[in-house]
Amino acid sequence: MGLIVQKYGGTSVGNAERIKRVANRIVKRKRAGNQVVAVVSAMGDTTDELIELVGEITDNPPRREYDMLISTGEQVSVSLLAMAIHELGEDVISLTGPQVGIITDDIHSKAKILEIKSERLEKELEEDKIVIVAGFQGVTINNDITTLGRGGSDTTAVAVATAINADLCEIYTDVDGVYTTDPRVVEEAKKLPEISYEEMLELASLGANVLHPRSVEIAKEYNIKLAVKSSFCCNPGTYIKEVEELENNIVVSGVACNKGEVKLSVLGVPDQPGIASKVFIKLAEESINVDMIIQNVTYDGVNDITFTVDEEDFKQTKEVLEAMKDELEYRELSFDTDVAKVSIVGAGMVTNPGVAARMFEALAEEDINIGMISTSEIKVSCLIARDKAEQAVQAIHSKFELDKLGMEND
Amino acid sequence: MGLIVQKYGGTSVGNAERIKRVANRIVKRKRAGNQVVAVVSAMGDTTDELIELVGEITDNPPRREYDMLISTGEQVSVSLLAMAIHELGEDVISLTGPQVGIITDDIHSKAKILEIKSERLEKELEEDKIVIVAGFQGVTINNDITTLGRGGSDTTAVAVATAINADLCEIYTDVDGVYTTDPRVVEEAKKLPEISYEEMLELASLGANVLHPRSVEIAKEYNIKLAVKSSFCCNPGTYIKEVEELENNIVVSGVACNKGEVKLSVLGVPDQPGIASKVFIKLAEESINVDMIIQNVTYDGVNDITFTVDEEDFKQTKEVLEAMKDELEYRELSFDTDVAKVSIVGAGMVTNPGVAARMFEALAEEDINIGMISTSEIKVSCLIARDKAEQAVQAIHSKFELDKLGMEND
Repeated sequence: MGLIVQKYGGTSVGNAERIKRVANRIVKRKRAGNQVVAVVSAMGDTTDELIELVGEITDNPPRREYDMLISTGEQVSVSLLAMAIHELGEDVISLTGPQVGIITDDIHSKAKILEIKSERLEKELEEDKIVIVAGFQGVTINNDITTLGRGGSDTTAVAVATAINADLCEIYTDVDGVYTTDPRVVEEAKKLPEISYEEMLELASLGANVLHPRSVEIAKEYNIKLAVKSSFCCNPGTYIKEVEELENNIVVSGVACNKGEVKLSVLGVPDQPGIASKVFIKLAEESINVDMIIQNVTYDGVNDITFTVDEEDFKQTKEVLEAMKDELEYRELSFDTDVAKVSIVGAGMVTNPGVAARMFEALAEEDINIGMISTSEIKVSCLIARDKAEQAVQAIHSKFELDKLGMEND
Repeated sequence: MGLIVQKYGGTSVGNAERIKRVANRIVKRKRAGNQVVAVVSAMGDTTDELIELVGEITDNPPRREYDMLISTGEQVSVSLLAMAIHELGEDVISLTGPQVGIITDDIHSKAKILEIKSERLEKELEEDKIVIVAGFQGVTINNDITTLGRGGSDTTAVAVATAINADLCEIYTDVDGVYTTDPRVVEEAKKLPEISYEEMLELASLGANVLHPRSVEIAKEYNIKLAVKSSFCCNPGTYIKEVEELENNIVVSGVACNKGEVKLSVLGVPDQPGIASKVFIKLAEESINVDMIIQNVTYDGVNDITFTVDEEDFKQTKEVLEAMKDELEYRELSFDTDVAKVSIVGAGMVTNPGVAARMFEALAEEDINIGMISTSEIKVSCLIARDKAEQAVQAIHSKFELDKLGMEND
């Protein structure tokens, strides 16, 4: 018995048959005595078809119009899902992001949720309806439709769960939980029955592709219990909760790999205070997220600044840097698109010295060169050559004996 | 120089190539010094694809969810058209029905526009933008998306023209104007350079398929000058205006044919006052439009009530009548789905006696039986067997010598 928010990804509602299956799952949960809100992504291929149409018209669509177009994908899936649930005899209503009152800023295609005015949602729940919410989208205070960017539906689900104070937020996806690493890369990967918000946050940011980091961030902030489950089977999945609630605190709980970043270097800038901040403030203004950063003084008193950004921001980042040539007085720019970031994550790391060293050792044994290193209390990341990524993940996974975790319990 | 509302149908924006062509046409008009608002339907096939998806899920979708689904079609076309216009270097914004502030009642799938809150539209026009409006859709005061039913984009265009006090409303379609009859049926059909609102209204209601009657009604009420033009060629089209502004007032200006109606008879109801009103009030409550009606007392003191409705309302009408069996005490119901309504329309008819008689003569000469007759000041309609429809139209067209009208001037 409780108020449950579920989230179904695009694959889970990829065709009429799958939509009916999800409808059944939701209705079952409702009939067990729960209130259910389901957040849904666009059907598998629809977004791609829309993007193809755009390509026939322009290479440079205004982002506002792009959001207007792309947001139709979820509107289609939520209304179809509502029809399927109605067919099963339950009271149901679908709502778009704007109808739910998901207010965002106006950074189109990458909008951030500012507030959820949940009156409508609560009214429908009080009338004992199942509510289907379009993920990934919101609306500015000027009534323009926005989208939240990649993984946005996860964020919608967690934000909605927060707004209505849900007991649990279940993320249904095409994998059945969070693994020690990508099972497509390392066959011996093990599913984790539970993990802390912090570890999940690092794994999410590192490209584990299960949950969007922003959604984990919000869940952590408002202490919303998360579960990652498969929409195709009935395994218990992985629960994500506070560290103190975990049963075990293992040193390294996962190895992640992200091939979606690009390395940029600004070479030969004067060794003066404020140069780096100029670069990163400008990038922040353009809503470009910078990931790893290193800066080192070279022999002749000039600086090199090296950092990574998402591949999709590469073009824009390059343009920003080129436009700043006079201001920064750099000697040259260099780019490396052929990189991958391999990381280990674990809440127990902070109290176990030598974890990073073991990771470096694993890479050295494979003759893999490390380009950049970045660490946090519960994470170590290394930038390496992209074609060595799988080899590195396998070596590290086996170095930390993650295949022997014995935590698989279903 | 002026404020122009244009409307483009689904065929006009059927693919990327056509969208670009429409973009060019709009931009040309803007650069000639006009303010332009374009109302757009869904791309040719998208609605059909969505309806197919519904069919895989349910035979009986809730109308609210159906509107939610179907309204995505226009949202796709307006955003793509805005992208194409932006590509040509003009300032542009697309707006959904809800964003425009097209407030409707809550009869989903057949909603009527109650009001247009045009502040947003006017603000965008003041900023010198081209505004692209999603046709066919609106929003209830409770923020639920509605659709206006068939031909709804025409209505949107005229209603928007009224709300912003436009100088002209141009309806672009796949024919290049209003003809004396359907040119696909009668090769000799002639294009009318102008026609009165009243005649157009009758032709529209009679299934001439060029303009939706509701749109002509609104244009007439607010005296908005209408033009019907082809989106594929540059012919002048047909202007629709007040009778007094017409240059000629011809007796019969067009022959229309509607194969989309069904005849229903309620046979053997007691000959008491109020029986017919019971039927038609009930149908009105269900938002079913009744077209032709006849009632006649039979020899044994009971009544037969016969009327026609749109084919798509047939199932529902039958259910309403069946549910009223005890109340109406009728003997039986009968149906004829095999009918067509052939009509002549002309503003000059009212001052020319014998017009109806000539029409009946034309039908008699072809041995076509007349099932029902209905007349207005500027119209005569006859219900005949569906398989005789083309033959009837040809005979009437030639009887009134419409092929010799000599009004074709382009």
